[in-house]
Amino acid sequence: MIKGCQNECTGGGCTGETGKQVTESFKASDLIITPATTFKEKPDPTGLVFGTVFTDNMLTIEWSLASGWEKPYIKPLENLSLHPASSALHYAVELFEGMKAYRGVDGKIRLFRPTLNMDRMARSARRTTLPSFDQNELLECILKLVEVEQEWVPYSTSASLYIRPTLIGTEPSLGVKKPTKALLYVILSPVGPYFASGSFNPISLWADPKYVRAWKGGTGDCKVGGNYGSGIYAQQEALEFGCQQVLWLYGEDHQITEVGTMNLFLYWINEDGENELATPPLDGIILPGVTRQSILDLARSWGEFKVSERYITMSDLTAALEENRVKEMFGAGTACVVCPISKILYKGMHLHIPSMENGPELTTRFLNKLSDIQYGREDSDWAVLVS
Amino acid sequence: MIKGCQNECTGGGCTGETGKQVTESFKASDLIITPATTFKEKPDPTGLVFGTVFTDNMLTIEWSLASGWEKPYIKPLENLSLHPASSALHYAVELFEGMKAYRGVDGKIRLFRPTLNMDRMARSARRTTLPSFDQNELLECILKLVEVEQEWVPYSTSASLYIRPTLIGTEPSLGVKKPTKALLYVILSPVGPYFASGSFNPISLWADPKYVRAWKGGTGDCKVGGNYGSGIYAQQEALEFGCQQVLWLYGEDHQITEVGTMNLFLYWINEDGENELATPPLDGIILPGVTRQSILDLARSWGEFKVSERYITMSDLTAALEENRVKEMFGAGTACVVCPISKILYKGMHLHIPSMENGPELTTRFLNKLSDIQYGREDSDWAVLVS
Repeated sequence: MIKGCQNECTGGGCTGETGKQVTESFKASDLIITPATTFKEKPDPTGLVFGTVFTDNMLTIEWSLASGWEKPYIKPLENLSLHPASSALHYAVELFEGMKAYRGVDGKIRLFRPTLNMDRMARSARRTTLPSFDQNELLECILKLVEVEQEWVPYSTSASLYIRPTLIGTEPSLGVKKPTKALLYVILSPVGPYFASGSFNPISLWADPKYVRAWKGGTGDCKVGGNYGSGIYAQQEALEFGCQQVLWLYGEDHQITEVGTMNLFLYWINEDGENELATPPLDGIILPGVTRQSILDLARSWGEFKVSERYITMSDLTAALEENRVKEMFGAGTACVVCPISKILYKGMHLHIPSMENGPELTTRFLNKLSDIQYGREDSDWAVLVS
Repeated sequence: MIKGCQNECTGGGCTGETGKQVTESFKASDLIITPATTFKEKPDPTGLVFGTVFTDNMLTIEWSLASGWEKPYIKPLENLSLHPASSALHYAVELFEGMKAYRGVDGKIRLFRPTLNMDRMARSARRTTLPSFDQNELLECILKLVEVEQEWVPYSTSASLYIRPTLIGTEPSLGVKKPTKALLYVILSPVGPYFASGSFNPISLWADPKYVRAWKGGTGDCKVGGNYGSGIYAQQEALEFGCQQVLWLYGEDHQITEVGTMNLFLYWINEDGENELATPPLDGIILPGVTRQSILDLARSWGEFKVSERYITMSDLTAALEENRVKEMFGAGTACVVCPISKILYKGMHLHIPSMENGPELTTRFLNKLSDIQYGREDSDWAVLVS
C-alpha cells in the first residue's frame, strides 16, 4: 500500500485514488532513450574545474501524487522548466547524491559502492517527504545513462565522471507541505581534483564555533540542500581568514564534526597511548559518507590499529598536538576522495597539523587502495561495472 | 566598492572587473512592463486555498557577478527556465519573503510595513551569499506589480493578495560556493485564511523535542528555504498525531520557540503574578516576524500589561496551566495574522490551553487592530498605499 494512500489495496500497483493506477516506482526497463544528436567537445581531463562542464544527456523521471512515477527518460541535457512556486525553490524540498564513474586501466568503466548512495538517497527522500522509489531501478537507469555517455568518462586515472542524482519538489503552490509533484534527474560532469590546489596538496581549516553546520533533531545526516547553502557564508569567512575550508564544530566542548563538505578523520596516538584512526560517530549530525564508510571498512579489515567512531573535541586535539601525538588528519568524500589537513585556525591560534611531515602515510595508503579499486587495478566487489 | 571586487574604485557604479560596468542595484525607474494580454479568471475570495492560484504577471530581475543587476521586468507569469545544476536546486541557495496587499474599505490598496520585509530580505540575502540590492527600489517594483495586478486584490476584508518575493542562486555549476548568477522574482496569489479550518478556529500543536527547527549558529533568524523543507517531516508526524502544527522546542529545557511557520505568543500571569505578554527573544533561532514586531509594538504602546521577549520552557507552561495562570496562546505571522492555540500534545499529555474560553480577548484585539490598519479602517503609518 502506498504510504499516505487511503485505500486498503495491497502489493503491486496500488491505486492511490480510487480507479487511478499509481506507480510505486519507475522501472529501468521502461527507459525511453532519445540521445543528443549534436555533441559538445569533451574537455582536456587535466584542466577540469569541478562541476562546471556537463555531458550531452541527462536522466529525468517525473512523479505526481495522482499518478506516481512516470517513465524514465534519457534525453539531451536541457534547462528545467519549473513553476516559480516550486517547493524546491522556496522551501528547499530537495536532495542530491554524489557518485563517480571511473575508467579503469583495463578500459572498463566502474562505479564505486553505488548501492550506498542509493540507500542514502532513499533516506534523504524520506526525511524531505519526497517520494520513494526502487533503488535498484534508479541504479540501473544511472548505469544506462553512464553507458550512453561513456565517452565522457575521462581517459585518465586522475579524473572521473561525477554523477549527480537530484530529487526536487515541484509542488506548484506556496503552503509549506508535502509536495504532490516531484522531479528526479541525473546530470553528469567530467571532473578532476575537487580543490583548485590539486588533489593531494594539504588544506587549511578555519574553526569558529559561531557557525554550526548541523544539530541534533535536524537534517545533518541526510544529503539535503539546506545543509549546504547555509554553510557558504562561513566558507566565505574562512577564505577571508586565508583558510580553504570550514572545520565545523559542535556543542559547548567544540566537538570536531566535519570539514567543509567532507567527513573528517584523525590518525593519532590517543589518550591511552594507542594508535587510533578516529572519526565522529553517526549521531545525527554527521553525513554518512560512502568514502567514510569505506575507510572504516578498510582500516578494520587491516586490523593494524584501533578504529573508532568517537567524539573528538578541539581540546583533545590541541592537547594531542602539544604532546606530539597527532600523525595525520584528513577529509574524506566522493569529490576529493581523501584530502590531508595541514593547518587549523582556531581562537586566533594557528595549529599546525603534521600530516605532510608524516607522509602522509596512512592518507596516501587509503587514496591508493581506493583508487586501485576504482580504476580497476584491484578486483573488489565494491566496484560495479557499467557494462 | 562592490564586496569581493578587487578594484580600488569607490562610490557610484563600480567596475567589478576592469573595464566592465557592474550594477549595484536595479532601479524601479528602469522597469520594463509587458503585461499579460490574456487573463485568468479571478477566483471567488471565499473559497481560496492558500498559495494555489497565481495572478497573470510576475516581476523578474536577473543578476550576475560579471554584470550586476539587469533591468527589472513585469511580464506574464511563466515557468522559470533553470539550468539543472542551479545552486538553488542542490544547495538551497534561496530565500523568500511573505507580504500582503489589502483592499481597504475605502477601495484603496495597502501594504503593511513592507520596509520590514525588505530589511529582512536583505539580511537573508547576506546570510545566503546572494547579491544585495536597494531595498527601496525593490519595494517600488513590488508596488508597481501590485498596481498592474490591482484587480487581483480581493474585494473582501477577509482575503488579500499574498506577495512572494523570492531570490534564488542560479549558479549553473556544482561546487558549493557563492553563486555568480541569481534571479529575483515576485509572484502574487490571492489568499483567504491560511488554515483550512478558517482564520480564527483554534489549532492544536504537537510538541516533540526530537525535531529541532533551528539552532544557534544556523539560519533560523533568516527566511531561507532550508528552514522550511526540513520541518515538513515533523509536520507530517504532527498530522498523524491529530495535531495541525508543530510546536518547535529547543534545548535540554524544552524552550518554546515557534509554531509551524509562525511566531508564538503567550498571554499569562507570570511567575511573579504579573499580567504578561511573552514571546521568545530574537537570539538567532527565532524568525523576526513582521506580525511579531507589530504585536510587540502595539502592546507596548498600550502600556496595559508587561510585554516581554523572554524564554518560556514547557515546564514554565505546564506549571502555569496547573495554576490556571494561562490566559491565551497564539501564533502570529503574515499568512495567518494571529491564530489561537487550544491544545498541545507533549510527552503523551494533552494540554488544554484555555485561549477560546478567555475570548480569546487579547488575540481578537490584536486581530482587529491589525485588520483595521490593513483594511484602512484606521489611519496608520504602518500602511503604505499602493498608488
